[in-house]
Formats: sequence, C-alpha cells, structure tokens
Amino acid sequence: MPIKTNDPNKKTWIPVPENSDFPIQNIPFGVFLTRDDVITIGTRIGNHAIDLGALHQLGYFKDIPLTDDIFLQDTLNDFISDGQKTWRLVRNRISDIFDKDNGSLRDNDDHKKVVLFTMEEIEMQLPVLIGDYTDFYSSKEHATNVGTMFRDPNNALLPNWLHIPVGYHGRSSSIVTSDTPVRRPMGQTMPAGAETPVFGPSKLVDFELEMAFITTDANVLGEPIPVDEAEEYIFGMVLFNDWSARDIQKWEYVPLGPFLAKNFASSISPWIVTMDALQPFKVDSPAQDPKPLPYLVQENGNKSYDIHLEVDIIPENSTATTVTKSNFKYMYWTMSQQLAHHTINGCNVNSGDLMGSGTISGPTPDSYGSMLELSWGGKNTVPLNDGSTRKFIEDNDTVVIKGFCKNDAIRIGFGEVSTKLLPVFQAKKK
Amino acid sequence: MPIKTNDPNKKTWIPVPENSDFPIQNIPFGVFLTRDDVITIGTRIGNHAIDLGALHQLGYFKDIPLTDDIFLQDTLNDFISDGQKTWRLVRNRISDIFDKDNGSLRDNDDHKKVVLFTMEEIEMQLPVLIGDYTDFYSSKEHATNVGTMFRDPNNALLPNWLHIPVGYHGRSSSIVTSDTPVRRPMGQTMPAGAETPVFGPSKLVDFELEMAFITTDANVLGEPIPVDEAEEYIFGMVLFNDWSARDIQKWEYVPLGPFLAKNFASSISPWIVTMDALQPFKVDSPAQDPKPLPYLVQENGNKSYDIHLEVDIIPENSTATTVTKSNFKYMYWTMSQQLAHHTINGCNVNSGDLMGSGTISGPTPDSYGSMLELSWGGKNTVPLNDGSTRKFIEDNDTVVIKGFCKNDAIRIGFGEVSTKLLPVFQAKKK
Repeated sequence: MPIKTNDPNKKTWIPVPENSDFPIQNIPFGVFLTRDDVITIGTRIGNHAIDLGALHQLGYFKDIPLTDDIFLQDTLNDFISDGQKTWRLVRNRISDIFDKDNGSLRDNDDHKKVVLFTMEEIEMQLPVLIGDYTDFYSSKEHATNVGTMFRDPNNALLPNWLHIPVGYHGRSSSIVTSDTPVRRPMGQTMPAGAETPVFGPSKLVDFELEMAFITTDANVLGEPIPVDEAEEYIFGMVLFNDWSARDIQKWEYVPLGPFLAKNFASSISPWIVTMDALQPFKVDSPAQDPKPLPYLVQENGNKSYDIHLEVDIIPENSTATTVTKSNFKYMYWTMSQQLAHHTINGCNVNSGDLMGSGTISGPTPDSYGSMLELSWGGKNTVPLNDGSTRKFIEDNDTVVIKGFCKNDAIRIGFGEVSTKLLPVFQAKKK
Repeated sequence: MPIKTNDPNKKTWIPVPENSDFPIQNIPFGVFLTRDDVITIGTRIGNHAIDLGALHQLGYFKDIPLTDDIFLQDTLNDFISDGQKTWRLVRNRISDIFDKDNGSLRDNDDHKKVVLFTMEEIEMQLPVLIGDYTDFYSSKEHATNVGTMFRDPNNALLPNWLHIPVGYHGRSSSIVTSDTPVRRPMGQTMPAGAETPVFGPSKLVDFELEMAFITTDANVLGEPIPVDEAEEYIFGMVLFNDWSARDIQKWEYVPLGPFLAKNFASSISPWIVTMDALQPFKVDSPAQDPKPLPYLVQENGNKSYDIHLEVDIIPENSTATTVTKSNFKYMYWTMSQQLAHHTINGCNVNSGDLMGSGTISGPTPDSYGSMLELSWGGKNTVPLNDGSTRKFIEDNDTVVIKGFCKNDAIRIGFGEVSTKLLPVFQAKKK
C-alpha cells in the first residue's frame, strides 16, 4: 500500500494558516470530546478538527475494510491494531476528501456541520490506552552530561551504554495529555550531609525533553521483532515530557532504577503524527562506534528523523522563554533498534504501547534537554525573559514542548504539550 | 459491610477433599473458559469451578447492586472497581448459596448443570487486565543475600533499603497465568573476563518466589493513599513467579534497573484469594528499625499474613523436588506500606494493577526464594530427587510455586502457578 499523502504541492479546501503544523500532508490522529459531549476519533487540518466517526457514518470510508464503530471509540488502540495497510488507506482517503478539487464534502453543508469543528470547540483527550510504557536513555549527549555531573567526566558513559539501547519500564497510569496540570510530588530525599532521609516536597522538579513512539501489536510472547522490520510496527510519534524529581531520584534509584521520581506524571502531545507523514524528513542517525551486535544492525537506508524541538517556560502571568532547542536526529540509538532490543528476549509489544526516547540533548549547552543539564546540576541559573531565573521548575510554571519538521516545501508539526506544575497536594482537614 | 464468610465450622454441599486449598471459606475469584467455549468469571469450591455469570443470570445475586454483565467478562477489572462493599456482598451470598443447608441451588439440577464445572472441564485465564505492574524488593533476607554476594557482606543492604520499600516498574504485557510455558530468553551478556558483550541464550534463568496483590481504583492522580487506609484498596493476592535472567540482568541493570532480564515473562496463579479470606491468618510483620518516616507508619494491629510458600522443580519426565520453603510473613515492608509509598507522590493506582512483593526469602538457606540464593551465585548445586542437580533452571524444567494458610480449624490456599521453561525461540528459515 503506497503512501499517497506526502505530495508537498497538494492543497486543501480547509484554510491552513501559514506555518501551521497541520497541513493536508500531516493527517495526524487523536481523540477528542466534541461540543456535543461525544468522544470521537479525529484528525486535524489547520485549525479544524475532523470527526472521523461522523465521516465514516456518512459513508466517506466505504470500500475500506473498517468496523462500523472503529472511530466511535475513546482510544485509537483498535484502529492502530488494524495495521499499517489500513492506516494508509484511511490517510489516503482523508487526503482525497479534503483535496481542494474534491467537492463531495466541501460542497455539502449538512455533512460539514457534523464533521468539522474548530479547535476551540473541542477538548483533546489521551489518544491511546497505554498498556505498557517504556523509557529509553538513547541520547549520547544526555547520558554523557549526566555521567559527567554525577560520576567521572573521563568515564562519563557506563560500560554498557554503547552496546545496549538502555531502557526501563515506566508507569502508564500517570501519563496525561497536554493542558492537564501535574502536581509537585512529595517524597523522601537524603539532603547532602544528612544522616537520615527527610520527607517533603521535591525541590528539584524538572522536565525532560523527549519524544515517544506508539506501537501496534507487533509480536507474540517469545518471538523477537527483527530490527529491519521494526518500523512497520510503529504507528506514529508524539512529544513527551518525562517529568522528573531529581532529589527523589538520587535517593531511591539504586539498584532498581527511578520509581517515584518519575511516576507522578508524564505528559504527551495529543495528536499522533504518523511515521508515514514523517518520511520526507528521514535523516541518517549518528555513526555507531563500536558496531552494535548483529541483532541491532540496521541495513536499510536512513534511520532517524530531522525533528526540531524546543522547550518554553512560562511563569504564572508572564511570557514564554525558550530555554532550549534540540533535535530528534541527535539520538544515538534509533527507534528500530530500541524496538528490536526490547523484543529480542521475546517480550511482547501491544497496540498502544508507548516508548520514550529518553531526554534529547544536543551537542551544545543551548540544546540540552533538561534543567538538570541547562543549570548543570543547579550550579548555574537559566535566565527568563521576565527577569527571573530558574535552576529547576517552580510552582505554577507552565512548561511547553514544541516540535516540527520543515524543508523547503513543507512543514509537518506535532503541535505542543503544555503542562502547568501545581503546588504539592494538601489533604483536606478532617 | 461485615465479612460473613470466615466461620471455620461452615460446611458446603459441594464435596471438598481433605487438605483442599478451596474450602467454602476461601471463595476466590478467577476467569475461565467453559466447556462451551464461553469466557466467564467464576469462583471455586473444592474441585468445582462455579460460573458466576450463570448464577447471576439465574437471579442468585438479586438485591445486590451489580450490572447485568458484571460476571460475563473476560477480566475481573470491572468487578474489582465496584469496591470492597460489593466484593463482600457477593462473597457473603456465595457462602449462603453453597451452605450445606441451602437447597435453592443444591436441589435444582437444571441450574446446577449450567453453574457447576469440574476443574477438568475448564481452562483458567489471566484473571485481570493488568494496567500497571510494579515489583517491590521488600524481603530483608533476600536483599541481604544479594548484597552479600555482589557487594560487601558487611554493608549488604544499600543505604536507602531500610527507609524505602524499594520498587520499580515491570512489564504488564508478558504476565501469564499458570500452565503457560515461557521461553528461555536470548540477550546480551558480558562474560567474566570478556572485553565486549556476547549475544546468545541466557545461561542463568531463575525463578523468584513472590506473591503479588491486586488493587482496585485507589486514588486520583496527585492524591496519596494514607497507609492506614491502603489495605481497603487491595482486592486480593496471587502467587507470583518473577522469571529472571541473571546474566542479562548483571550487564544491563546499571543505572536504570532490570529490563530484558525480567520482561520476557512473569507467571501468576489464576485464582485471586481475597484479603477478606486471609483475615484469620494476619500476623505481625518484622520489627522495623529504624522507624520509618511517618507516612509509612501503620497504627492498626497486625500487618502481614502467615502464608506458607514452597517451590518445586520438576525436570522433564521426572518427579518433583521441593527446593525451598518460605513464608510471606518474613516480608520486612508490608503491602500497606508499599501502596502508601507508591502513591505518596500522587501516582494513581487503578483496578487490576498488580504489585509484586519481591523475592520472599526466609532466614535459613532452605528458605531462600531463588536459585541465585539457593546455589549461592552458582557456587553450590541443588540436588533433585531424580539424582540430577541444578544451579539454575534448565530447558523443559517445570517450576511450581504453591502457597497456603493453615490453622487448627481451616486451610485457605492459592493453588499453584506451574510454568515450563521452553528452549530459546528458533526463527523459521525463510
């Protein structure tokens, strides 16, 4: 099934503002609550959300093998289970329906009334039920920065790092979408010089600039996915803020890894941009030396994506400051390598599983992907436009991650994931 | 809602063999496939499985607020969501229906025909859809053994261990129930003396003798569960074998914890024994010194359970050898402390989440909960009845974990979780 949606010259009859992340070539998938309080699966062109459930009921997807209720659901899991061929058929059809020369929906006001919403009329939901969430640690620059700060600058990378796409399991239940505030966590920490741990609000709450990919049902328990087939099982990508409490993490993480330092919340952008839409932005990934073991060696062409990323901090009642600009292409380990590694032991991957990249730091200090690195462990301050400074994130700050691909002809973006950090929870007095 | 099911003198009209794990006082919950290929929720008395879906359709649960299809589901998640009061109403009613003096079902052959199955007629399924799986590390004896072997016998426990119920997130997708074989994993290891890692079958596959508890929806994101309320949110417990590949674990686990060494499979027993059924077996947990931080201090009575545990190894075409006997009561950290700690940062817990105890080792070498400890890192051999020996688990061995509570009046058991270890996966030649 060929991809027919990437022609940069294609125009749509929906108005698309200049520099929109969502031209007719994007066609992402999401879940939203409509003005009528109905949850539906949809896509987005420009500043319009499109109700795919309504489109399907009106017959616009006829001849495509879809169950009647495939878009009338509160998650994309079943649609993602349908597989790559179906995703392409549906995106090709959407591309046709909204082509500027196609009058079938364009000229049918009754249909448009039930299919089209402005973004202000809807409320985005978490797009998938995330069965399992895995976070990798695949930026060499990030791992090097952390190793330099906390261990030995001359041996910053641990011995396994260049051989393994190091990863660990995270918490699915606390993953939220954009515009859902999260609370500063309480927890145990061991302050420098103390002899016993103390309990209180985390003082070092941080963002982590990441992206994440979402899989379809990829394999049965016991059978690995070969690295050169892995990308077929990736539905798409989102922006990902892996909230972290650095002081809790430091005290708890030996020997079994981060736990409460991470699982109080992670935030994803609501529109899943498909791998097909990202094809024009494929780039090679960094050279890997030493050469990985054979099960991690990819033979097929370019393996990464040129995705511009940035993080803004917005203090309460203030304006945004962009504190870092990075790029997904810096990742040392590719998504295909991550997925092949994850399953080499037979671990099974299901529709809706989410896999985070790990913090995406670039080579220069203005491209680091966390406050931990930007403030170099709290040694430096990061200036904001309003004259204030930050070492970590403060109560009522809003952190916004944005991401987009761009070439001479076209821009394909992810929108944003925007999250306000609320103060710690106060139990009501009895 | 009082518990009315624990009277040890109560008798049932269903035949219950001597020493059965499933007297009328147990009333566990599970999911099974019937002889008619229907999946239903059920309970068990003696060697009979009872179709609760059929019982409900026949009106036996009238006056209890349950949806019509609550037992006609392929997981217990919705029933568990109904909460403790409903669990008790249903178990009290089941206790009544099967009371030896109650003729309503006993004397109705038409009803019995659709409600009762022998265990041979059904096939047990995974009882819950596990949204998130967390594994703790709460046996002081186990943590001490591991620390003694791999670090410093004089400082075997890491500094955080006595302050934190250390835990980490695991993989939900690869949790299977009893009688589902698992495959020896392939993976990367760094052999002693090697300079680069090698790839191949794990040579050190191990069981971990654990138990796990299953929660109901306990809190919303951002709000902790107080330690003295925590047990209200625990539905019940199962036996748990946390399969581990020690050689893969050793190479991969720094700094983010175990990953592929664990996520190839974990196995649970199919019947969830409710906390209510375990009440007669409450015992105090070990004294905690130093005293934990206040959010972990339980004020209410006994906090642990006296549950006898054992592990058998059955080589192919051979007989069983019990290689260890342990007890849940040895756990240093209690389930309530684990759940309070897990949520102190606001992490939300859902119906069907599974939380493992960590390996349950007792104080003596014949009570250690893993081959790693029983063979002391492979230094010793463990003799089996058929004259063979083991340091770790070999291909086609079956590992069986059993568990039960017993006092002068009654025995409440968990049945078993039995798992055969198959050789590594061989890809079909193209």
